[in-house]
Amino acid sequence: MSSAAGQVIRCKAAVAWEAAKPLVIEEVEVAPPQAMEVRLKILFTSLCHTDVYFWEAKGQTPLFPRIFGHEAGGIVESVGEGVTELKPGDHVLPVFTGECKECQHCKSEESNMCDLLRINTDRGVMLNDGKSRFSIRGQPIYHFVGTSTFSEYTVVHVGCVAKINPAAPLDKVCVLSCGISTGLGATLNVAKPKKGSSVAIFGLGAVGLAAAEGARIAGASRIIGVDLNSNRFDEAKKFGVTEFVNPKDYTKPVQEVIAEMTNGGVDRSVECTGSINAMISAFECVHDGWGVAVLVGVPNKDDSFKTHPMNFLNERTLKGTFFGNYKPRSDLPSVVEKYMNKELELEKFITHEVPFSEINKAFEYMLSGAGLRCIIRMDA
Amino acid sequence: MSSAAGQVIRCKAAVAWEAAKPLVIEEVEVAPPQAMEVRLKILFTSLCHTDVYFWEAKGQTPLFPRIFGHEAGGIVESVGEGVTELKPGDHVLPVFTGECKECQHCKSEESNMCDLLRINTDRGVMLNDGKSRFSIRGQPIYHFVGTSTFSEYTVVHVGCVAKINPAAPLDKVCVLSCGISTGLGATLNVAKPKKGSSVAIFGLGAVGLAAAEGARIAGASRIIGVDLNSNRFDEAKKFGVTEFVNPKDYTKPVQEVIAEMTNGGVDRSVECTGSINAMISAFECVHDGWGVAVLVGVPNKDDSFKTHPMNFLNERTLKGTFFGNYKPRSDLPSVVEKYMNKELELEKFITHEVPFSEINKAFEYMLSGAGLRCIIRMDA
Repeated sequence: MSSAAGQVIRCKAAVAWEAAKPLVIEEVEVAPPQAMEVRLKILFTSLCHTDVYFWEAKGQTPLFPRIFGHEAGGIVESVGEGVTELKPGDHVLPVFTGECKECQHCKSEESNMCDLLRINTDRGVMLNDGKSRFSIRGQPIYHFVGTSTFSEYTVVHVGCVAKINPAAPLDKVCVLSCGISTGLGATLNVAKPKKGSSVAIFGLGAVGLAAAEGARIAGASRIIGVDLNSNRFDEAKKFGVTEFVNPKDYTKPVQEVIAEMTNGGVDRSVECTGSINAMISAFECVHDGWGVAVLVGVPNKDDSFKTHPMNFLNERTLKGTFFGNYKPRSDLPSVVEKYMNKELELEKFITHEVPFSEINKAFEYMLSGAGLRCIIRMDA
Repeated sequence: MSSAAGQVIRCKAAVAWEAAKPLVIEEVEVAPPQAMEVRLKILFTSLCHTDVYFWEAKGQTPLFPRIFGHEAGGIVESVGEGVTELKPGDHVLPVFTGECKECQHCKSEESNMCDLLRINTDRGVMLNDGKSRFSIRGQPIYHFVGTSTFSEYTVVHVGCVAKINPAAPLDKVCVLSCGISTGLGATLNVAKPKKGSSVAIFGLGAVGLAAAEGARIAGASRIIGVDLNSNRFDEAKKFGVTEFVNPKDYTKPVQEVIAEMTNGGVDRSVECTGSINAMISAFECVHDGWGVAVLVGVPNKDDSFKTHPMNFLNERTLKGTFFGNYKPRSDLPSVVEKYMNKELELEKFITHEVPFSEINKAFEYMLSGAGLRCIIRMDA
């Protein structure tokens, strides 16, 4: 145990005092971990669309003041009662969704949607006592998805912490906490393209490019990128994308364009935009007889997926995935190993880096659509 | 070769002269098989809903006079040029869809939707010359789905003929030509329930009961039958159905009833009615995280499948199947073996038997909803 174990730690955190206003670096108090919790020293964190989405709080229940952040790499500082799997000094990735290992989902080989620790964006407190571990002069500051990694120290449920190879560079593998694993797993664990097959990827942001990276690793011979922004096509080539379709360039539906390019449809498709029309196109562009479409992007709450049922009867499959079907604690260590053995290339996802003091720049990059992932160095 | 090889055969056939009028037993002329065709002596045939549907010709292009029938067992009488896999005397099941073994679907491990010989209900002639092999005093009589088994002799493309174990009783295994294999394969090949799992079957007609039989064979511990007709529940018990839900007995949607019965949803569901609402219920009643719904029933042409896309994102899978994903020539022989080794029980599907001369009785049984399969004995 470190000398601070059991004590409150005072450290810097980037606090969102209100929606869509720049974060403010504040000195916060971080309480010790309670039962089944661990306190982490965050070394690197990165910014994901989901942080920005809830920071903007358009349409969601606003919950402020709050400490955002959920893609990160760090080291265990101390552990609470009952924690046996982790000890101070372990290198870890905190994850926005968890794995209790006890519920029916955790016990199922197929699901990663843990009943106890499934993502909950409305909850700003810890499960154990319904309270926050963060405060400023006695005022509680809300957590975000159980991780709140925009802080030098944070408290996380042990079920949301993946212990990884300590030789892995945390400034690279921190991006596996969310978006990159989500896209990669959608292809490798769910779409499962065969070597030599064709794959269409809808949306060429970080998640879509991670899905393309999965198709490249799986040995797909044609990876068709679909995006409304043709500027993304050049960068996408680095991720194995071989052909590009901008739906704006055609009068016919993009599913018909893709069917014509591929003699009836692609073998697999992965939808990473969350647009309902893209979801329908992604389903209808797969080949009859064997095509599989996988939905990753999160839809709006009033959306309706509509298609003619014969599209299913003709032996197409549609499935959705959450966090690439990875179980956080059981599976993330092996994704880190894929990077360590150079199968998975993470460097190309990291386009920017800023010191913690300039964290608002990371928001600016994302809002302007510049780059893919911006690493925030907590020690600078 | 039989003595009639290469000659026209005169025999009895049940001809539908016009829509929805009783069939008439006529003497027809059956031309010899051309290239890649075989002429079969039909010993037993049974009646399937699809025959009745196209005989009623409500909404479809009417094609009369026509010889219906597509579930049957017979013996090869003679073979046309180029046929090497079959010889006179072979015991066979003709099938309404084929397997050319050359197209991309036949070459795919996953698909059985042969490009060349896929079911075509609008075509009443043979592929080789675009003509019929049946005639009455020079007037051509149309074929039905390439099989036309309501005739003592018929001509079928070799790709639509499965050669089976000659020890198998044709008066039983003839029902594997269509409906029973369709339901059985939907469960065994597509839904693939694990031992001890829960399965909901929508529609307890012959296809749905065959799907239940598949679930029983797979070792499902709960098989929930869903039907608007509670009279079907007693018979369904013989097929392994353990619980029954009549949607009419509830004010809430049946998917909610099933979710409550099963702590969140069934592991697998199989939809065998073709009703769009049942399709949506069958999808929405499977458990998040791992549930798989399989569509079997054929929808109306104006139907639209609608659901909230989050139902997919929560890790549910929806897929359709055609003929239970069985490749007719490659896979049907092994289904016959399942019957021979007593794994699959076919007797319970056979509720009636009539001589060929009384074939219209079989139509009456089906129209009144009596029983499951009526065997028509051609020699009587």
